Amino acid sequence: MDYFAPLLAQDAAAIDLSAELTQNLLTTNNVWMMLSTALVFIMHLGFAGVEAGFGQAKNTVNILFKNTITPIIGILSYAVVGFYLMYPGFEVPGWFAFDASGWSLFWFAPETADITAGYADGGYTYWTDFLFQAMFAATAATIVSGAIAERVKLGAYLVFTLFYVGLVYPIIGSWKWGGGALDDMGFYDFAGSTLVHSVGGWGALAGVILVGPRIGKYVNGKTVEKPGSSVPLAVIGVFLLWLGWFGFNGGSVLSADPGLVSFVLVATCLAACAGGLGGFLAAYFAFKRLDLGMVLNGVLAGLVSITAGADVINPGPAVLVGFVGGILVVISAVLLDRAKLDDVVGAVSVHLTCGVWGTLAVGIFSTNPDHSFFTQLIGVAICGATAFAAAFIIFFVLKNTMGIRVSEEHERNGLDSHEHGIRGYTIVYDE
Amino acid sequence: MDYFAPLLAQDAAAIDLSAELTQNLLTTNNVWMMLSTALVFIMHLGFAGVEAGFGQAKNTVNILFKNTITPIIGILSYAVVGFYLMYPGFEVPGWFAFDASGWSLFWFAPETADITAGYADGGYTYWTDFLFQAMFAATAATIVSGAIAERVKLGAYLVFTLFYVGLVYPIIGSWKWGGGALDDMGFYDFAGSTLVHSVGGWGALAGVILVGPRIGKYVNGKTVEKPGSSVPLAVIGVFLLWLGWFGFNGGSVLSADPGLVSFVLVATCLAACAGGLGGFLAAYFAFKRLDLGMVLNGVLAGLVSITAGADVINPGPAVLVGFVGGILVVISAVLLDRAKLDDVVGAVSVHLTCGVWGTLAVGIFSTNPDHSFFTQLIGVAICGATAFAAAFIIFFVLKNTMGIRVSEEHERNGLDSHEHGIRGYTIVYDE
Amino acid sequence: MDYFAPLLAQDAAAIDLSAELTQNLLTTNNVWMMLSTALVFIMHLGFAGVEAGFGQAKNTVNILFKNTITPIIGILSYAVVGFYLMYPGFEVPGWFAFDASGWSLFWFAPETADITAGYADGGYTYWTDFLFQAMFAATAATIVSGAIAERVKLGAYLVFTLFYVGLVYPIIGSWKWGGGALDDMGFYDFAGSTLVHSVGGWGALAGVILVGPRIGKYVNGKTVEKPGSSVPLAVIGVFLLWLGWFGFNGGSVLSADPGLVSFVLVATCLAACAGGLGGFLAAYFAFKRLDLGMVLNGVLAGLVSITAGADVINPGPAVLVGFVGGILVVISAVLLDRAKLDDVVGAVSVHLTCGVWGTLAVGIFSTNPDHSFFTQLIGVAICGATAFAAAFIIFFVLKNTMGIRVSEEHERNGLDSHEHGIRGYTIVYDE
Repeated sequence: MDYFAPLLAQDAAAIDLSAELTQNLLTTNNVWMMLSTALVFIMHLGFAGVEAGFGQAKNTVNILFKNTITPIIGILSYAVVGFYLMYPGFEVPGWFAFDASGWSLFWFAPETADITAGYADGGYTYWTDFLFQAMFAATAATIVSGAIAERVKLGAYLVFTLFYVGLVYPIIGSWKWGGGALDDMGFYDFAGSTLVHSVGGWGALAGVILVGPRIGKYVNGKTVEKPGSSVPLAVIGVFLLWLGWFGFNGGSVLSADPGLVSFVLVATCLAACAGGLGGFLAAYFAFKRLDLGMVLNGVLAGLVSITAGADVINPGPAVLVGFVGGILVVISAVLLDRAKLDDVVGAVSVHLTCGVWGTLAVGIFSTNPDHSFFTQLIGVAICGATAFAAAFIIFFVLKNTMGIRVSEEHERNGLDSHEHGIRGYTIVYDE
Repeated sequence: MDYFAPLLAQDAAAIDLSAELTQNLLTTNNVWMMLSTALVFIMHLGFAGVEAGFGQAKNTVNILFKNTITPIIGILSYAVVGFYLMYPGFEVPGWFAFDASGWSLFWFAPETADITAGYADGGYTYWTDFLFQAMFAATAATIVSGAIAERVKLGAYLVFTLFYVGLVYPIIGSWKWGGGALDDMGFYDFAGSTLVHSVGGWGALAGVILVGPRIGKYVNGKTVEKPGSSVPLAVIGVFLLWLGWFGFNGGSVLSADPGLVSFVLVATCLAACAGGLGGFLAAYFAFKRLDLGMVLNGVLAGLVSITAGADVINPGPAVLVGFVGGILVVISAVLLDRAKLDDVVGAVSVHLTCGVWGTLAVGIFSTNPDHSFFTQLIGVAICGATAFAAAFIIFFVLKNTMGIRVSEEHERNGLDSHEHGIRGYTIVYDE
Repeated sequence: MDYFAPLLAQDAAAIDLSAELTQNLLTTNNVWMMLSTALVFIMHLGFAGVEAGFGQAKNTVNILFKNTITPIIGILSYAVVGFYLMYPGFEVPGWFAFDASGWSLFWFAPETADITAGYADGGYTYWTDFLFQAMFAATAATIVSGAIAERVKLGAYLVFTLFYVGLVYPIIGSWKWGGGALDDMGFYDFAGSTLVHSVGGWGALAGVILVGPRIGKYVNGKTVEKPGSSVPLAVIGVFLLWLGWFGFNGGSVLSADPGLVSFVLVATCLAACAGGLGGFLAAYFAFKRLDLGMVLNGVLAGLVSITAGADVINPGPAVLVGFVGGILVVISAVLLDRAKLDDVVGAVSVHLTCGVWGTLAVGIFSTNPDHSFFTQLIGVAICGATAFAAAFIIFFVLKNTMGIRVSEEHERNGLDSHEHGIRGYTIVYDE
């Protein structure tokens, strides 16, 4: 095998040591990036757990169906179109391009893909690049699915996902990560507080507005709690998301650079903890109870908040950024309910509110003097306006064609019995 | 510590740079292989989730008992006998041998185990080799357990596992991976569509035939659905299996070769997605419903299908291989029910049908011109005949000695109350 | 980027190859250590699964609240105080010190943290060091939480956790891992059978004594079983703990040294299997049933038992150490019940009994002739006396101030409805 041959020769004279060293480092970097990819992948199970756990038992199968099919559609559509929209190798002005030669390489000449240390500065191979980014892409749609669960038509959601992951997410992403216009402007978003989380959050907000609240959620000005099917399932989900964030943020270094990656992981975990604490305390003062849901969403809030600046925010400020995120998620949830915007799992509060906060926090706390609050604000506004408008248009068109909401009967009985023919839980002991 | 001393000297003149480089690469390769081992390990939880989720609540503890004890017996029996049967260092003709010196090294002279870059071309150490292969071995029996759940006697299953994992699996495996007769012949099975999955699947088929269908499964020519206890648990299981496949296929490169491993992961994930899509569409056309079970089994079908050729099948064909696998799993499940072969989780359809398909697909789509459809067919036939015959004989002997099926009363009441004395779920709120 | 620049030059003459090689090895080591950190992190979900699965459904949310907030408090308090108590850079006699300069570096001058191969012999960076150790720290409190679940006041538990993780655990840990007095004495505890598990176990024992048994647990001299809410959840927990142990023990090598880490993983997995087998057989002889709970606790017992000597105990003795652990856990559970010490999940039996056994086993089976049974015994006694006394004092003070036990009414109704206002499971299908 080529990979080993020169080394096994063990003949210093016969090999180019420097070239081997470079190849060796690529191997190490690539191991980290592949495992980060695996960690981001398992976030899809995390989302499934959170959404099925917080959703009602009568809709469990429907929710899980959405969460299983989302990475499937997401990864395939990213392979078919998204990848080449997101990293097109921009010319100015950097708002839209498609890498046709990349597309034909992937599908028709994969043997020519660059898997050497010449690709991506030796940080990873072409194939790892694709797979890591594909795992990211699918998360944007998943965020939407949680918000509009329990009453959205599954077919409509799938069509939305196809367009949102296949087109909207990669185009917005290209503006920064593809080296486009926002990147030129100096906008900074390390791992996607804006490009992933708030893009997903804006889609969720558009969906929540157009789909409308669940029947019986807001009655006579009061918010009615709809108990989730399984709190353990939601806890499993949140812990898996936290675990996945080791790869989401850690992998966003795009190499295994030991100092930088480990710094990022410390900032990420401190913010997660502080977010959980913030959610706990805010909910305790607001609701006078030990609100596990708000601790869990607080952890996620802390994680989303630190995502934009995990590589440029020191431990002290990281704790602060996460803690504020945990408080904001509680305030946001209360305000959304006042506005009768029914978000089943708090996705808008976690991903949009804290995504915006985290991106702005870079402008406040970054150790890099090139980062500015104003530029961050511009980036948030441009991405937000685009994502919200795109999601609104897609949902609006779907609403007026195939429809986006199930019938009242289906919603009352639960989606599982009508669309799937099975129940989420069948725990009976007598025949 | 020896491991660091030469490097920390930081004295180029004093150390053999080339040797250090080789050692360094071994370290990286070994990290990947150890983490692949951990990923394959977690597949045992994945199988537990799928089987307990799809099985009825009255048998949950029994199913989980089987799935917990299977890796325990599997790893121990692989340490006691399997490892030395599977990699015996063959002489011709390569059908059976036992590495007695390896056995005594493991148990009585472990300090002599080769942990240098001289072992396995520097891909991993002796210990990693053992553990990675041991995790693989135990999966073969687990596949059987899902098919014959809810009516098999636990003691009989444990004895079967002991023989199947300890003897049958490693002997068949030795024919290809141990460098035996099938390897000489040019048969190719990258990560085990045949050697692991169809070997497990043939065992499952033999078990299903000899144990017979569950009471009340086939009534007046109709198939009666037996609702599983927890769909979320099955979803957790499938996602963990998908995650585990990063190590199952990725680790089967037997090094961290960056180009090859990442290529394998892309093929693996594309096939998984395409399989899920295939299962979804096939079930929609066949049953007119959004069948989550078939999406889940479709994902597994795609994974099993690509396993034989994940390193030699390009992205386009990988999608096709997975998609066909997803369709085949639905067709296979329907045909098995027509034949009144009652397979609780669809293990025969997923692992046998798609294991065969995936192995043959190498003969169609491989980029390596040495691979031939005919040779693949021969390999499938030889392994299949051996595995089925061996499993049939073991189950047959057990049936006529200790018995392999619980009493009708136990089966009706559920195995948990009789054999284990506890229930899988106790969700009551009143004392 | 600095990290790549010298290599990409590919100019052997221009770079110091030896220095680059060292940096490269640091990168690999650090990848392993970061992933070990992630694996130890997921053990917190494992504990949550075990405890919520074995606890009654009426207390599920309360248990999960404890298990979610524990790593949050644990990591934050370790960042605030624990880290600098545990690795203070001792002068003799090595019983107590605080690294004030480390503290101010972490919070006020993080840019000066040593992330080069000069730190920790190139095994990992400063940041990885902190995070890996922080994940460890939080486990000690989690062990306590399982034992005293279902009747402890949540507020009291949180205060206990703050002191136990923030002060007691790191001070005891410093005696060995921080290079303190026990280290000087020759005491050996590779990954924490004593320093983590028995410290947690002694805390659990003190808690169990002072909190008292649950109402209705011991009636007329008989032990009443309280069925856990979800056996699948407990199984998920145990498998995740086993997975996490790949990082707990494997990461305790403090580098990716290929021979040593893989040796450790083999010993760890063999002991886990043997423990499961020991628990299975012991429970079968004692209770005449197939006791899944004892298989699961047997696996954990095997893992705890091998933790002190996983790097110095060969495969054969490793199997023995684990097997004995699996038997001891059953005996211990029976004896505790006879003494009316009510431990919901068997935490004292798993972590204390087997933690002590595993530490002593090093004195019997270690391949390192410097290890002695007597020194191990001294270490166990010193750590045990300190941990038990400290935990007893904390709980005693809390008992006589804020109280440590909920009211009888709360306990009977379940803690969830009173303290949290939601239920763990809401599986209803009719509105």
